[in-house]
Amino acid sequence: MATVKLLSDDELSSEVRAVFDDIRKVRQSDFINNFWRALAHDPKTLRRTWDSLKEVMAPGALDPKVKEMLYVAVSVAHGCSYCIHSHTASARAKGMTAAEYGELLAIVGMAAETNRLVTALGVPVDAAFLVDSAD
Amino acid sequence: MATVKLLSDDELSSEVRAVFDDIRKVRQSDFINNFWRALAHDPKTLRRTWDSLKEVMAPGALDPKVKEMLYVAVSVAHGCSYCIHSHTASARAKGMTAAEYGELLAIVGMAAETNRLVTALGVPVDAAFLVDSAD
Amino acid sequence: MATVKLLSDDELSSEVRAVFDDIRKVRQSDFINNFWRALAHDPKTLRRTWDSLKEVMAPGALDPKVKEMLYVAVSVAHGCSYCIHSHTASARAKGMTAAEYGELLAIVGMAAETNRLVTALGVPVDAAFLVDSAD
Amino acid sequence: MATVKLLSDDELSSEVRAVFDDIRKVRQSDFINNFWRALAHDPKTLRRTWDSLKEVMAPGALDPKVKEMLYVAVSVAHGCSYCIHSHTASARAKGMTAAEYGELLAIVGMAAETNRLVTALGVPVDAAFLVDSAD
Amino acid sequence: MATVKLLSDDELSSEVRAVFDDIRKVRQSDFINNFWRALAHDPKTLRRTWDSLKEVMAPGALDPKVKEMLYVAVSVAHGCSYCIHSHTASARAKGMTAAEYGELLAIVGMAAETNRLVTALGVPVDAAFLVDSAD
Amino acid sequence: MATVKLLSDDELSSEVRAVFDDIRKVRQSDFINNFWRALAHDPKTLRRTWDSLKEVMAPGALDPKVKEMLYVAVSVAHGCSYCIHSHTASARAKGMTAAEYGELLAIVGMAAETNRLVTALGVPVDAAFLVDSAD
Repeated sequence: MATVKLLSDDELSSEVRAVFDDIRKVRQSDFINNFWRALAHDPKTLRRTWDSLKEVMAPGALDPKVKEMLYVAVSVAHGCSYCIHSHTASARAKGMTAAEYGELLAIVGMAAETNRLVTALGVPVDAAFLVDSAD
Repeated sequence: MATVKLLSDDELSSEVRAVFDDIRKVRQSDFINNFWRALAHDPKTLRRTWDSLKEVMAPGALDPKVKEMLYVAVSVAHGCSYCIHSHTASARAKGMTAAEYGELLAIVGMAAETNRLVTALGVPVDAAFLVDSAD
Repeated sequence: MATVKLLSDDELSSEVRAVFDDIRKVRQSDFINNFWRALAHDPKTLRRTWDSLKEVMAPGALDPKVKEMLYVAVSVAHGCSYCIHSHTASARAKGMTAAEYGELLAIVGMAAETNRLVTALGVPVDAAFLVDSAD
Repeated sequence: MATVKLLSDDELSSEVRAVFDDIRKVRQSDFINNFWRALAHDPKTLRRTWDSLKEVMAPGALDPKVKEMLYVAVSVAHGCSYCIHSHTASARAKGMTAAEYGELLAIVGMAAETNRLVTALGVPVDAAFLVDSAD
Repeated sequence: MATVKLLSDDELSSEVRAVFDDIRKVRQSDFINNFWRALAHDPKTLRRTWDSLKEVMAPGALDPKVKEMLYVAVSVAHGCSYCIHSHTASARAKGMTAAEYGELLAIVGMAAETNRLVTALGVPVDAAFLVDSAD
Repeated sequence: MATVKLLSDDELSSEVRAVFDDIRKVRQSDFINNFWRALAHDPKTLRRTWDSLKEVMAPGALDPKVKEMLYVAVSVAHGCSYCIHSHTASARAKGMTAAEYGELLAIVGMAAETNRLVTALGVPVDAAFLVDSAD
C-alpha cells in the first residue's frame, strides 16, 4: 500500500538529498527508512519534520531510550503500526531491555483501561490535581 | 458531571473499605481520589483494577517517574483529561522536573504528528524493523 | 461552550419544527436534548441524522437496552462525554441494571487494555479468525 | 509483522504453560490464539491479563454474546483489527446472528457519526442527563 | 482479511442490486469498490449509507475536491487505511494537485501535534472563541 | 484546569516575548490565546511549534479558509475541544459561511461513520486505489 511511491536514492531532488545526507550523518547509518522516502515528495515538509524530530529526540533531560519508549506509547494509542515497529526497534537499539519493554506494554494497557473507565464514568478532576489549587 | 455518584467514606461496603484501606496503605496517604470513589459502586471491578494498577506501577525495571510519564503519554493520546491531570501530578510528585516535562510534551506532540503523516501516506513497514528479519 | 447557539423552540424554521415534532412523537416526551438544538442550524443534516438514528435504534433483533449499551461503549472509546451521559441515561431508562452497567464498564476497560496490547505487539490475525479460512 | 516472536508450545516456561493450560480448560479447546503467544514473553502480564479477561467475560448479568458484541464495538472504535476479527468470531460462536451483527455495525457507525457531530459542535450536557440532577 | 465475504455481482439480492445500480449511475463508472460489496450483506444499512453519502458528498457550497480532502483528514485521524486510500484516490480524481496534497498532509500532522499539546496541557478555551461571548 | 499556569505578559522570558511579538505581527492582532501562554513555559517548544504552524498555515495552494476547516476536521476526530473552538473561530474569521460549516460537519460525521464500518468489516483495499497499480 502507500498513497505515494517511495522514492529511491536516484529519484531525489537536491533539497531532499541534503536532508537524507543529514539523516545519515546524525544517525551514523546509511539506512533511510520508508517514512522519509514517502515524505520526500514534499521537500518542505520533509525538512521541517526532520529538523523537528532531530530537535525533539536530541540528548536532553530524558534518557534517549526513555524518549523512544514514550514515542512507542503514543504510537500505540494512535494505532500507527509503522511507528510502533520503527520506534520499538529504536528503543531496543538504544538499550531497552525485555523487562523494560514488558513494563512499557503493561503500562500502555493499564492506562488504556483506566482512561476508558474514567471517561465512561465522567469522573471530575480532584481539586488536588489542579495546578492553581497547589499554589 | 459523572454518570454515577461519587461515594464518600461513610457510604462504602466493607469490600470497598478494604480496597480503600489498601490504597491508603500503599500510597501512604489518606487521600482517595475521585476515580476510586466512582469505581466503588462495583467492588469487583474496583478490586481488580486496583490490584492490577498496583502490580503494574510497582517498582521494577523502570524508574517510577518514567512509569508515570508513560501513563501521561497514553492518557493524552486517549484524550482523558482526568488521567492527564492525575498522572501529571503523580509524575511531578515522583520527581519529574520542568525540563523532563517539557521533553515529554514535545515527544507526545511530535509522535502525534509523525503518526498521522505515516498513516496518511500508508507507509509500509521496513523489513529492518521486523523481528523475524532480525533473526 | 458550543460552537453554535442552541436554538430554543421559538427560533425554529418550519422544517426543523417538523423534525422536533417527530422526535417528540417517537420518544413520547416533550424533551428535546441539546444535540438536536445544536444541529437545528442545518435542517438537512438534522433531518438525515434523526431519520438514520430512528432507523438504527428502532426495535429489531437486539434488545433496545443492549443497543444503548453498544452506543455507550463506542462513545467511551471516542471520548464523547455528551454522548456517554445521554446514552447511559437512555440505557438506564430502558432497563439497564447496576450489575449490567458494571459489566459494560468492565468490558470497555478490558477491551481497551487488550486492544492496545495487541496493537503494541503487532499480533497477526490467526487464520482461524478469517472468514475465508472458515469456508 | 509483530514486535516479538510468537512462542510455540515447545518454547514456553512452566509459568506460561500453566496459563495456557487454564486457557485451554476454560475455553474447552486446544487452540491458543496468537495474542497469548505474543504475551507469553512476559508471564506476569500474561497471567494478569488472562485472569482479568476470564473474570470480565465470565457468565454474569449480560448474555455472553452481548459481551462479545460490546468487545467488538470498543475494538472497532480503537481500530484494533486483530481484536475485531477475534471477537467477531467469538460473538458468532456464541450465537450472534447475521441480523444482530448487522445491527451492531449500524450502531457502531451511527454512534461514530453522532459522537463526532456532538464533539464538533461542543454541545453541553443537558441537566437531565446528570446523575446529581436526577436526585 | 474482512469479517464477511465480499459479494460479487452474481450474489446480490434485488435490493442490493438496485443500490449498486444507483452507485454506478451517480459515479458514471461500472466499478463498485469493496466497501459496498462488504456492506451488501445488510441491504438496509447499505441503502441508508449510500443515500447519506450521496447527500453529503453532492455538489454544494464546498468544492467536491475539498470535500474529499476533508474526508481524508478525518480518515487519517481515525486510522482507517481503506478510507485513506479510497478518498485520496477520489480527491486526486477530482483535481487535487501534488501541492494541495502536500498541504493537506502538513495540516493533518500539525493539527495532530497541537491537538495533543493542548490536551496534555489542559488549556482552557479562551472566552474569545466562545459563540456566546461574541454576541 | 490546565497542568501548568498560563503565563501573563509580565511573566515572560525575552525568548518567549520574541515569539509572542512575532505571533502578534503575523496575526496583526494583540490577542495571544491561551495555548501559547501554556506553551510559554518551554521556549524551545514554543518557538518550534509557532514556526511550524506559521509555515504550515501560510498562504499556499489551498485557500486559508479550507486550511482552517481541515484543521477543525482533524481536531474533531482527535476530540480536542480547545482546538475545535479556536480553529472554528479562525475558519469563520477567514470567511467560512454557515453553509460551508454545515457541509464540514456533515462530512466529518459521515467519514466517522464509514471509517468505523470499514474498520469493523476489515475491508481490503481495492487494487484500483493503490498507487502502484496506477503506474
